[in-house]
Amino acid sequence: MTDIDRRRAVWLALSAPFIPSALHAAGAPPQEHPHKMPDTPNVQWMGNEQIAMLMYPGMTVMDLIGPQSMLGALMGAKVYLVAKTLDPVTSDGGVTIVPNATLKTCPRDLTVLFTPGGTDGTLAVARDPEMLAFMADRGARAKYITSVCSGSLILGAAGLLKGYRATSHWSVRHVLSGFGAIPTEARVVRDRNRITGAGVTAGLDFGLTMLGELRGRFYAECCQLMAEYDPEPPFHAGSMKTASAEVKAPMVEMLVDFTNKSEALAADFKKSPLSQG
Amino acid sequence: MTDIDRRRAVWLALSAPFIPSALHAAGAPPQEHPHKMPDTPNVQWMGNEQIAMLMYPGMTVMDLIGPQSMLGALMGAKVYLVAKTLDPVTSDGGVTIVPNATLKTCPRDLTVLFTPGGTDGTLAVARDPEMLAFMADRGARAKYITSVCSGSLILGAAGLLKGYRATSHWSVRHVLSGFGAIPTEARVVRDRNRITGAGVTAGLDFGLTMLGELRGRFYAECCQLMAEYDPEPPFHAGSMKTASAEVKAPMVEMLVDFTNKSEALAADFKKSPLSQG
Repeated sequence: MTDIDRRRAVWLALSAPFIPSALHAAGAPPQEHPHKMPDTPNVQWMGNEQIAMLMYPGMTVMDLIGPQSMLGALMGAKVYLVAKTLDPVTSDGGVTIVPNATLKTCPRDLTVLFTPGGTDGTLAVARDPEMLAFMADRGARAKYITSVCSGSLILGAAGLLKGYRATSHWSVRHVLSGFGAIPTEARVVRDRNRITGAGVTAGLDFGLTMLGELRGRFYAECCQLMAEYDPEPPFHAGSMKTASAEVKAPMVEMLVDFTNKSEALAADFKKSPLSQG
Repeated sequence: MTDIDRRRAVWLALSAPFIPSALHAAGAPPQEHPHKMPDTPNVQWMGNEQIAMLMYPGMTVMDLIGPQSMLGALMGAKVYLVAKTLDPVTSDGGVTIVPNATLKTCPRDLTVLFTPGGTDGTLAVARDPEMLAFMADRGARAKYITSVCSGSLILGAAGLLKGYRATSHWSVRHVLSGFGAIPTEARVVRDRNRITGAGVTAGLDFGLTMLGELRGRFYAECCQLMAEYDPEPPFHAGSMKTASAEVKAPMVEMLVDFTNKSEALAADFKKSPLSQG
């Protein structure tokens, strides 16, 4: 079942009780509905959002797929997985994903510009003039400029966070101030049209937030139910506030090199042409 | 940064305070640690688990990547993304992933056998003799037999759930009884060595549960902090218990065809050779 088939099936199923003519338009006969559908709010089931999600070697795959699993449920929208070329891209955890657009073929006018995070791969993008020029260009016109995890370092290095509250992975959130942002501790931070998520798994909360933003709460709740997003972590060490000191110490140690390199990146930002204007 | 590099860096960072010789073995000079590391429990940082995650056209990509993002943090373990061939596999949401093993090259003796779910693509696998033979063969020896979402239909069709409590996506959980399983409503269900997760996003809770099972709670909590898994959904419609009637009705309607086809699959199971023995 292709994505388009799935979306059409979904759309028909959703719209059939409300717009019987939709079935005719799709070539299907009108159907009797065995149970009465309840009244629903005025929902925008179909849309035409243009969404670009950046991909690069060393990205954290869950940073990409959490949001994609939500944004991919926007019927009628187009999700571009954008990389330098169409060659497969390997994440830091070894998952290889095939892009469907390049920096050149990605639409110029976007509803959502998004970047995932990572560690060394993210820092490489944040020092890559070609990637930063792409982000700055699309960011100049995008309706929403977004990231999850350390992806906000890329937004920052592209000059897209100056004067905005934003978040990141706990290991580098403070670094955002070096890009002129206001580091803010929250699962999802919104400041005008900048919407940033915290580390890795915050991409689900970010994605669901975006669904509500783009199509309204009812649509978002439908997607939440489909994805059975009713989290129940078996442990409670998911934040610097809840993890024990014994857990925090080796994890901070493990990322100290990444944190240091991120601080150096932010220090160099002041010399970048993207820090002006 | 490759996966192996990352794992080595992680291992070094983690083990350095406890096993200084590890640094020598890896060719790095011994280092001073500026802050005293706290005592930690007796943690098994390195392992050698063999993990096979099935891939197929139409799989739900989040079903795969949620668990992979946790299992991929098992230092020393090998994660096989297994498909019929090494050709890229496209998910129901349009994400294309490259496998790294085939049904033939996947190791015979596994620590964890896992399958994601989906809709029509999942039903196709559950009626595919070659895929079912693979699952039954590896399942006969795997230490853990696992799934997320409607992936449990595949386990069921392979005869791997007879007499076991198990769960699935809410739209097909009841269908598991047709495979001789005991449908059980919980985020993650464990019965002996069968561990199954509920729909889609339950893969994170499933994956974290597996980390605790394989390496202990401390290791799992370290990974939870790295993934900042401290969920905070902006809405509360993620289960059939919490979603409103208005949200539930169109979603049940949207999946009624899948539910019906799944019931037909379970009815046909009684005629399958895999239902014996």
